[in-house]
Amino acid sequence: MLIVMRKGSSPQDVQRVLDLIEQLGFRGHAIAGTERQAIGITGNPGPVDPALFELLPGVAQALPVTRPFKLVSRELKPDDTVVAVGDRRLGGGGFTIIAGPCAVESEDQILSLARMVKEGGAHMLRGGAFKPRTSPYSFQGLGERALRLLARAREDTGLPIVTEAVDEASLELVESYADVIQIGARNMQNFALLRRAGRSKLPVLLKRGMSASLEDFLMSAEYLLSEGNGNVILCERGIRTFSQHSRFTLDLSVIPVVRRLSHLPIVVDPSHGTGHRDRVAPMARASLAAGADGVMVEVHATPDRALSDGPQALLPAQFTTLAAELREMALVLSRRPEVVS
Amino acid sequence: MLIVMRKGSSPQDVQRVLDLIEQLGFRGHAIAGTERQAIGITGNPGPVDPALFELLPGVAQALPVTRPFKLVSRELKPDDTVVAVGDRRLGGGGFTIIAGPCAVESEDQILSLARMVKEGGAHMLRGGAFKPRTSPYSFQGLGERALRLLARAREDTGLPIVTEAVDEASLELVESYADVIQIGARNMQNFALLRRAGRSKLPVLLKRGMSASLEDFLMSAEYLLSEGNGNVILCERGIRTFSQHSRFTLDLSVIPVVRRLSHLPIVVDPSHGTGHRDRVAPMARASLAAGADGVMVEVHATPDRALSDGPQALLPAQFTTLAAELREMALVLSRRPEVVS
Amino acid sequence: MLIVMRKGSSPQDVQRVLDLIEQLGFRGHAIAGTERQAIGITGNPGPVDPALFELLPGVAQALPVTRPFKLVSRELKPDDTVVAVGDRRLGGGGFTIIAGPCAVESEDQILSLARMVKEGGAHMLRGGAFKPRTSPYSFQGLGERALRLLARAREDTGLPIVTEAVDEASLELVESYADVIQIGARNMQNFALLRRAGRSKLPVLLKRGMSASLEDFLMSAEYLLSEGNGNVILCERGIRTFSQHSRFTLDLSVIPVVRRLSHLPIVVDPSHGTGHRDRVAPMARASLAAGADGVMVEVHATPDRALSDGPQALLPAQFTTLAAELREMALVLSRRPEVVS
Amino acid sequence: MLIVMRKGSSPQDVQRVLDLIEQLGFRGHAIAGTERQAIGITGNPGPVDPALFELLPGVAQALPVTRPFKLVSRELKPDDTVVAVGDRRLGGGGFTIIAGPCAVESEDQILSLARMVKEGGAHMLRGGAFKPRTSPYSFQGLGERALRLLARAREDTGLPIVTEAVDEASLELVESYADVIQIGARNMQNFALLRRAGRSKLPVLLKRGMSASLEDFLMSAEYLLSEGNGNVILCERGIRTFSQHSRFTLDLSVIPVVRRLSHLPIVVDPSHGTGHRDRVAPMARASLAAGADGVMVEVHATPDRALSDGPQALLPAQFTTLAAELREMALVLSRRPEVVS
Repeated sequence: MLIVMRKGSSPQDVQRVLDLIEQLGFRGHAIAGTERQAIGITGNPGPVDPALFELLPGVAQALPVTRPFKLVSRELKPDDTVVAVGDRRLGGGGFTIIAGPCAVESEDQILSLARMVKEGGAHMLRGGAFKPRTSPYSFQGLGERALRLLARAREDTGLPIVTEAVDEASLELVESYADVIQIGARNMQNFALLRRAGRSKLPVLLKRGMSASLEDFLMSAEYLLSEGNGNVILCERGIRTFSQHSRFTLDLSVIPVVRRLSHLPIVVDPSHGTGHRDRVAPMARASLAAGADGVMVEVHATPDRALSDGPQALLPAQFTTLAAELREMALVLSRRPEVVS
Repeated sequence: MLIVMRKGSSPQDVQRVLDLIEQLGFRGHAIAGTERQAIGITGNPGPVDPALFELLPGVAQALPVTRPFKLVSRELKPDDTVVAVGDRRLGGGGFTIIAGPCAVESEDQILSLARMVKEGGAHMLRGGAFKPRTSPYSFQGLGERALRLLARAREDTGLPIVTEAVDEASLELVESYADVIQIGARNMQNFALLRRAGRSKLPVLLKRGMSASLEDFLMSAEYLLSEGNGNVILCERGIRTFSQHSRFTLDLSVIPVVRRLSHLPIVVDPSHGTGHRDRVAPMARASLAAGADGVMVEVHATPDRALSDGPQALLPAQFTTLAAELREMALVLSRRPEVVS
Repeated sequence: MLIVMRKGSSPQDVQRVLDLIEQLGFRGHAIAGTERQAIGITGNPGPVDPALFELLPGVAQALPVTRPFKLVSRELKPDDTVVAVGDRRLGGGGFTIIAGPCAVESEDQILSLARMVKEGGAHMLRGGAFKPRTSPYSFQGLGERALRLLARAREDTGLPIVTEAVDEASLELVESYADVIQIGARNMQNFALLRRAGRSKLPVLLKRGMSASLEDFLMSAEYLLSEGNGNVILCERGIRTFSQHSRFTLDLSVIPVVRRLSHLPIVVDPSHGTGHRDRVAPMARASLAAGADGVMVEVHATPDRALSDGPQALLPAQFTTLAAELREMALVLSRRPEVVS
Repeated sequence: MLIVMRKGSSPQDVQRVLDLIEQLGFRGHAIAGTERQAIGITGNPGPVDPALFELLPGVAQALPVTRPFKLVSRELKPDDTVVAVGDRRLGGGGFTIIAGPCAVESEDQILSLARMVKEGGAHMLRGGAFKPRTSPYSFQGLGERALRLLARAREDTGLPIVTEAVDEASLELVESYADVIQIGARNMQNFALLRRAGRSKLPVLLKRGMSASLEDFLMSAEYLLSEGNGNVILCERGIRTFSQHSRFTLDLSVIPVVRRLSHLPIVVDPSHGTGHRDRVAPMARASLAAGADGVMVEVHATPDRALSDGPQALLPAQFTTLAAELREMALVLSRRPEVVS
């Protein structure tokens, strides 16, 4: 159920609705739009009678929300969510470039790469400290040491840090060092982890699971919002299909659909999505053209010696060329240049 | 086996190679590149000894071709194939827009739509005369009458005609009226039809089957080339996946891979690929950005009353806006403007 | 629309209904059940008013059929279709074993294999004369010569022949030699071929396309029935999925669903469905256990030298063991022993 | 690397090999077979020189293991793993039936169902205490209260308990009440949870993720074994495909492949795998016929009022019929009756 307030309704009107929701044993979520207030109701086991609310002062409408997702829904919040990350803004018309290595490997590596991608045009720095790996025998990341190095790279370059948490313990560490908590594709339905990230003050970048329907994906975001964290960035990173020419099949047509159904921004990871360096730039450009709010790409100075996922990393010079192309395209596509440049 | 001739080898040298191939009971395919000649061998049941050819005058190399496709392979023909359609050229750096209704429904409909898409910026006209339909009870197209109407629309607008053949009988009719023969996704492995189209003088636009791997797709094109028709345009139109938010999942990452493996041009059909009008423009832009040689989009003046696939057709005004966007993007992406405008 | 007649309605009553259908410009299909008559209506562009029929004598009910398939639907014909093939019966509770080589390769090969599978327990003989192959350079079958050899094998063993037609020309040849026309997975939506097979007097074994939904599959069968051929055997042969341990993913859960929605029998091809010899027997047993009406398996005496698909062929001794297991299982599962033995 | 000892090698010989592995900085895993000992090496960053080991007394061979999984591999341990659960044995030729409700809902419900499925022929009791749900607003299970009720049901019936853990906290609770820890499909690559379960003394039933390749699946089991827990039961529960007639597509052909590659037992969950009651019995029978070591099915006395997944639960009488069919089939298929009865 969604309660839409009239334009000009007072804070007291809103409070009265919230009080009634609480009396009924449900949870109310006030959502401030630019034009009007709305209040989402969650925790109701079944349909709620709209009449209970429509007679209250200041209430314009009480709408049953039929889709299973509520707080992530554009019906509930018509305006785009713009996520503040440091002094950057992701969403709302700009185009954000997140770049860096798959994994933090050493101080030299991350500091020099951070400078290169900064100069090349990146707005944020990515780099894995905790790596979920298919094999127990693969490199699993440097852990807290990597987080400390990422923080040093931020000091050095000013780039905010995006890095993955894989369980409660790593999430707490990520929270104390980074700017955005990444939840990986394999944990998209790790609901305990989602609930914990939903209670964080940091924005969350949530990757789509490789077999997640759009509804599954938005419901996982709903876990985050239902715990109070509205700063959620969705990330398409490819789905599993029979098509084996790429590691995964990037499902770019999800972008216009997310745009219509949800107010949350969506970025694309063409590095994991394709698994091959030579497809990263075409698919990054395609992501922008399809309406994504940003891309996250892997860059490595010596990909042949990378400890993970080397074959998909761009060389620094390739990244610089790509970022320039994206800037030019963004102008043609009327994307906000100040965010892009 | 691929015989690569030296630069400056004579026509007699080439003929000598072809003669030997014939003596061995195989088929030779001369391929003229801008820099050097090559000759593909097909019909050999197993490996052929390179030494047989390498001693002939003018032969630079005899290469075993390890991939199952030969004639479509860029190893065999390094230069892009550019397909001439009337006075248009598809491939080779330009960007071609093919537009029109899903099916030809009446004289008024096709003539007025042809003018609209011409004005809006289309380079070719599409329109179905023979419609392969999942249900035997659905509208199956106007047949030859539709072909006559398409020919009239071409007279009127100068736009070359792309239309589908579904069996041998319809292919012969299409040949006598149209400029490009389309082979639909459901017939991508109708090998009898492929062989027949391979003997046609007209270019063939071959759609990827909805469960075709890239190798399957290229092997079906190989059927066309092995019969002598080198004017083949590949068309990505979405694959079947678990992801149900769109009718199919457009697999745009196939574009850079086709580009690397094959010399054939590739276009994208975002109308059938998504099945929803509001996703056509984003995915058409993404196709261009990913490196496609063109798009094929459906346009209808009154999609609610279309006899087939109305929900995915753009309105004429939407098409005009999209074509203008594509032109602007093509300039930024250094695509040949003269083909685009 | 489906017209259900009362028990005891007269042939005149039925004719009266058929006449009205014709007057309305639709097509009527009389369906004789064991208990009662029904008449399916096709060719109606939209809903038909039930009242038009319910007042006629002998009519029990006029039911709108909401699913897109009509003639294949169990709503229309509640009793199982049993397909007569020579003196064999496929469907209706028995379990039919079809066996033989992928392709007919020589007289010796097919005659000796026919005897072996007959002795081993097969009820029908399979063997390809026309092979649809992904590559134009692969062995495409011996054509009519193979059909003549199959006919000789039938003379020799009494086993009816199942063999594939790939286009109109081959279908006519198959019709004149074989007992069942197979339509392969790649031609499941070759609607011209389906229409032609629908006009044949021979039963048709229709394989599910590798990306066909159940609805697509049944609609292709509908093409056959709508042309008048009610002797249709469905065949599950695996779908394309991300799962690459087998060549395809056999979708056995389609069996109980087909059973509920349609009156047509369904068999399984575990040889093409898995692509590996060691998985054929487990999946053949699973097909029977899941309720299939039969299996079609490939057998070859020297699979290493087979001209196509050798790795999936059982050795004759393996086939004999499997057939014995299936017979024992069929007894436990209360499948009609006379058909099985 | 796998060290295979000679028959009759002494414990000292084995210890000497383990000592050398430790000196090299790797981990050794002694694996006792019925005929001979083997020692797996993990933790080696790259290939290890076989010569290092082949000169030691008692060593028959040092084999490089090329597949990414080691401890789960049948190369490493040729004999079937048989998992002891209470006084039951799962694997090794028998067929185990695990039954119960999706979720524990009340004392009455679980106690009466436990008795019914015991009488009906179940060998173990399933029932969810912690439910991972796509929606944050769905019923998430009764938690520890459910575990106490399951323990009471075990006291009452003697049936061992299988129940799911969704995070570290719930795993600790499950450990203190249940007999088998289930790791659900959505947590198959929750590597932190896998590591924790790998340190448990209880057997683990690991469900295949809905987009997990067979290799991914076995690598997740490898996490469990690499932490020391060899009592792992694999569970196929359906994969995500385009085929929408069932909730998931049960991939039964994985069974013979697992059987060949791994020594671990595998069971099938046809309830979640199909999502429809009327497909559970056919697919349970097919699982047995394909060679599975058991099935896990949901049973509910009043599925229309179930708090989760009611439409897929069998009624108690349906379960009893199914269990009887499975017992009869197992006899025909030469499966160990004492485990089945």
